[in-house]
Amino acid sequence: MNLSGVFAPIPTPFDRNDGVDTARLKTALGRWVARPITGFVVLGSNGEAVLLDEDESDRVIAAAREAIPRGRPFIVGTGRESTRATLGAVRRAAALGADAVLVRTPGFFKGQMTNDAFVRHYTAVADASPVPILLYNFPALTGVNLLPAAVSRLASHPNVIGMKESGGDIAQMADLVSGTPTEFSVLAGSTPTFYAALCVGVAGGILALACVVPEACTRLFELTASGHHHDARALQRQLIPVARLIGPTYGVAGLKAALRIVGYDVGVPRSPLYPVPDAGEAALKELLADFEEVSA
Amino acid sequence: MNLSGVFAPIPTPFDRNDGVDTARLKTALGRWVARPITGFVVLGSNGEAVLLDEDESDRVIAAAREAIPRGRPFIVGTGRESTRATLGAVRRAAALGADAVLVRTPGFFKGQMTNDAFVRHYTAVADASPVPILLYNFPALTGVNLLPAAVSRLASHPNVIGMKESGGDIAQMADLVSGTPTEFSVLAGSTPTFYAALCVGVAGGILALACVVPEACTRLFELTASGHHHDARALQRQLIPVARLIGPTYGVAGLKAALRIVGYDVGVPRSPLYPVPDAGEAALKELLADFEEVSA
Amino acid sequence: MNLSGVFAPIPTPFDRNDGVDTARLKTALGRWVARPITGFVVLGSNGEAVLLDEDESDRVIAAAREAIPRGRPFIVGTGRESTRATLGAVRRAAALGADAVLVRTPGFFKGQMTNDAFVRHYTAVADASPVPILLYNFPALTGVNLLPAAVSRLASHPNVIGMKESGGDIAQMADLVSGTPTEFSVLAGSTPTFYAALCVGVAGGILALACVVPEACTRLFELTASGHHHDARALQRQLIPVARLIGPTYGVAGLKAALRIVGYDVGVPRSPLYPVPDAGEAALKELLADFEEVSA
Amino acid sequence: MNLSGVFAPIPTPFDRNDGVDTARLKTALGRWVARPITGFVVLGSNGEAVLLDEDESDRVIAAAREAIPRGRPFIVGTGRESTRATLGAVRRAAALGADAVLVRTPGFFKGQMTNDAFVRHYTAVADASPVPILLYNFPALTGVNLLPAAVSRLASHPNVIGMKESGGDIAQMADLVSGTPTEFSVLAGSTPTFYAALCVGVAGGILALACVVPEACTRLFELTASGHHHDARALQRQLIPVARLIGPTYGVAGLKAALRIVGYDVGVPRSPLYPVPDAGEAALKELLADFEEVSA
Repeated sequence: MNLSGVFAPIPTPFDRNDGVDTARLKTALGRWVARPITGFVVLGSNGEAVLLDEDESDRVIAAAREAIPRGRPFIVGTGRESTRATLGAVRRAAALGADAVLVRTPGFFKGQMTNDAFVRHYTAVADASPVPILLYNFPALTGVNLLPAAVSRLASHPNVIGMKESGGDIAQMADLVSGTPTEFSVLAGSTPTFYAALCVGVAGGILALACVVPEACTRLFELTASGHHHDARALQRQLIPVARLIGPTYGVAGLKAALRIVGYDVGVPRSPLYPVPDAGEAALKELLADFEEVSA
Repeated sequence: MNLSGVFAPIPTPFDRNDGVDTARLKTALGRWVARPITGFVVLGSNGEAVLLDEDESDRVIAAAREAIPRGRPFIVGTGRESTRATLGAVRRAAALGADAVLVRTPGFFKGQMTNDAFVRHYTAVADASPVPILLYNFPALTGVNLLPAAVSRLASHPNVIGMKESGGDIAQMADLVSGTPTEFSVLAGSTPTFYAALCVGVAGGILALACVVPEACTRLFELTASGHHHDARALQRQLIPVARLIGPTYGVAGLKAALRIVGYDVGVPRSPLYPVPDAGEAALKELLADFEEVSA
Repeated sequence: MNLSGVFAPIPTPFDRNDGVDTARLKTALGRWVARPITGFVVLGSNGEAVLLDEDESDRVIAAAREAIPRGRPFIVGTGRESTRATLGAVRRAAALGADAVLVRTPGFFKGQMTNDAFVRHYTAVADASPVPILLYNFPALTGVNLLPAAVSRLASHPNVIGMKESGGDIAQMADLVSGTPTEFSVLAGSTPTFYAALCVGVAGGILALACVVPEACTRLFELTASGHHHDARALQRQLIPVARLIGPTYGVAGLKAALRIVGYDVGVPRSPLYPVPDAGEAALKELLADFEEVSA
Repeated sequence: MNLSGVFAPIPTPFDRNDGVDTARLKTALGRWVARPITGFVVLGSNGEAVLLDEDESDRVIAAAREAIPRGRPFIVGTGRESTRATLGAVRRAAALGADAVLVRTPGFFKGQMTNDAFVRHYTAVADASPVPILLYNFPALTGVNLLPAAVSRLASHPNVIGMKESGGDIAQMADLVSGTPTEFSVLAGSTPTFYAALCVGVAGGILALACVVPEACTRLFELTASGHHHDARALQRQLIPVARLIGPTYGVAGLKAALRIVGYDVGVPRSPLYPVPDAGEAALKELLADFEEVSA
């Protein structure tokens, strides 16, 4: 599986009764597959995976599988707090057609999540998974940090093909790249540091903004790959303000609002999340108007 | 319901196949109900609630309900990340006989968990819950902080009867006590600061150590209540080292090891948690030998 | 020297040219010595010590020594970043009449300030100091934490008679008390947790608020010492809001504004500090009006 | 003044009596000026500036001025906690021949160091300074963060020509570059992220490692500038482990030990700092042996 490029972490639409709305999910995916996006991730953080129950998760996977053509990587988030539940989620995702799974670090019992604990957890998952797995580190949300020392050990497992690193520490990103084999793909999860992450050698990114302005994200990837650093830096600067609004400031609600602005029908997040305020929507609208693919 | 006193957060035993073992749970509860413990909490952090699926949770509640006599408060942890799943868990716990539910703050989407978001979440839960609810704040594990300003607003809801505060900030604890009505019960969740928390006016505690040395914990409560501060302080000092081993150092695994030492059969935690090392078990053994109720 | 009671950390007045104004300092001290304050600290954090040069520091010490009667403990802050400069400051303070010195942890090179480094630093200072020393831990300002393990080692030095602990962690405070000999005096530095600190056994406090409402602070100390916990708690609650304004919110500027409100002429802090805004002054005025010693 | 390139932050040697040793400083500078180093900074963090008194500082400046040829930028660290003392230090440094001064953020009173406070402080310094000033942000040591919003405002002052940013947050670094005029020079202070910082547009770096392996640091700068990203990344990876040892792990002591290994006579740091342990020296020796300029 080629993990080089820009991946979109797909949000989950809900219907009026707060239920998962697979029809709107498939409609939206029908548009995304026509855009310059390398592959798709469902049930990640931006998919509100932690707000869904297991049945809902399965329905999201099945619907996405129908909408995403074979050949475009289709990755499913299957992180759970227990190793046992993670194994269950991985097996179900594989059975429903996932090409690979993205396994977020367990993080509730922070004090006990040592390197050894992570290695045991991921080894158990990788041993049993019918499909390749990607590690997933997101310290700002989980409160734990999957360190390069643990990743190096895990990268030698034949069923561990890469990782998503959503932290913004570029030195750690560089360590991940240099401490793993070439065929192990590190994917950046944070748009404001995407250009810098590409500079230190990541294979690509899984970027919320890729749902909204995929051409811009892909162009940033290609400009850097082809050595056009000056243009890449300018584009990175343009992406930062909107990335911050749909990242730290408004989170999933920001992503959904931005998608509504560019014409997607994905609704609002599930409670306890809540829609962005009007001022946030206005700010997003103004920033997005500067992107050619939006205003065109 | 009287929430004044010392409550025990009951761990969940697993069998050899890593399944929930309700038989051993009932046996252990049979011993705990004979001890000086005011009431019981199942499916809290120490109950490894986040490592259980919904069916397993239901079986734990049903088993505990059988073992705990009516009249002794029986509280069930029902925190989930989504408001919807929390409501489901609350309804099922009530149907299975919980006297009250303990609802941990959702905390995955940290940046969006404002005071308003917490108030909306807990109000929705309290409105719909068939039994009274207790708020539950544990910043060290969740990464979010349910502030006194939000608690003050929630304390006026007729179905919100108290809270468990597991943070160690005594000034915040004092604010919680002074900012809520007398009939709202603040319960401390951290043993090393239990005496200081009692000094600033909490109604009692939900303390892992109360599973292990309930007489000592209850005596600390009573000494403080009766104004015997000198003896209370001495007892608090004795409790701190063992509380740290079964708290920050080894967590649930430490609690289970300590229980094995004092004669309970509750096994080891579920993966990714792991048993305490031999040195930890030896340290626990040495510290516990100094408690009369253990050595007797 | 008796370190049991409530000490006032005296602010440093500046004149119109931003110079140290020892005349106004002596006038203010003339009033403070008539109040129920056990002893005095000059050149602490609230004395803006880090904003003064060595000559200015010496003039403050000399002026204070003139104004404070023998017999009332007179303590001088002499913390510097290097051991060498600290020794110089200690010797000068002793020569100028300090009864004891208060030595803040060096903290610039945070990564290197291990327990051993602190023990070496303080041992060198205590060995050479002509007067007894108090350790001083203020993690929120220095970014380093003088842990109970290091304090226990230092407490056996005959020239180390106590410490000021300004952190709000009551469990750490309890450890300091239990890990040091009875004749070693732990003094609390934070008013919002003063009552809880007294409960766990501290000898007293060095409290900015003691400059403003010394009777209230002393009464809190005495109520707790005499076992009147109910009244102590009520008084603690009254002190918290104003303590927060002159602590974390406005800092030294808040203290100086509060002092102006109660009739002291101590001006505003030195740049880069700046006066409190009008809204802050109004809030202080309102809170202080509720204290009998102010409104009387 | 051209601030593009690699600058060396010069350490301060001490003699056997713990006094400043300007003779050894001049000898060492005699070697450094023959190396590929753009310019020199004395009395920075690595110069142990906070451990020196004002007289010692002046002697360091005078000695360095003698040893550094006109035409090579000579920058002096003059940060102090008060605006008043900073102004004094700036004037003395200018009088002693500094080409520019580097002014670290005051950071003791963390809660009060708002953007406005920083802008007032630096404006006062820039207004009065006879030589151009560089801002200096080092959050890991000072505990405060000079944000891009404040820097943007200060960058329009004609006497503020650039800044040193020692934080590792590459998104913040990119914001600094994009939020300031082209003629304002952002210099990176952290070697592990130097390559990434160059990618996002910084003008150069002030790097402790440039004292030890100046050719490697300068080559990294030139490789990136000329678009040889693959080689730059490989060199960056080689620099990281040794940069960590002389940065977070051992700090100034690590820098001095590394310099001893490569033949400089700069001794050990002043107390409370302390020499690196033998194991650290061995680790440095092994890592440095891989650099051609060392082993040659």
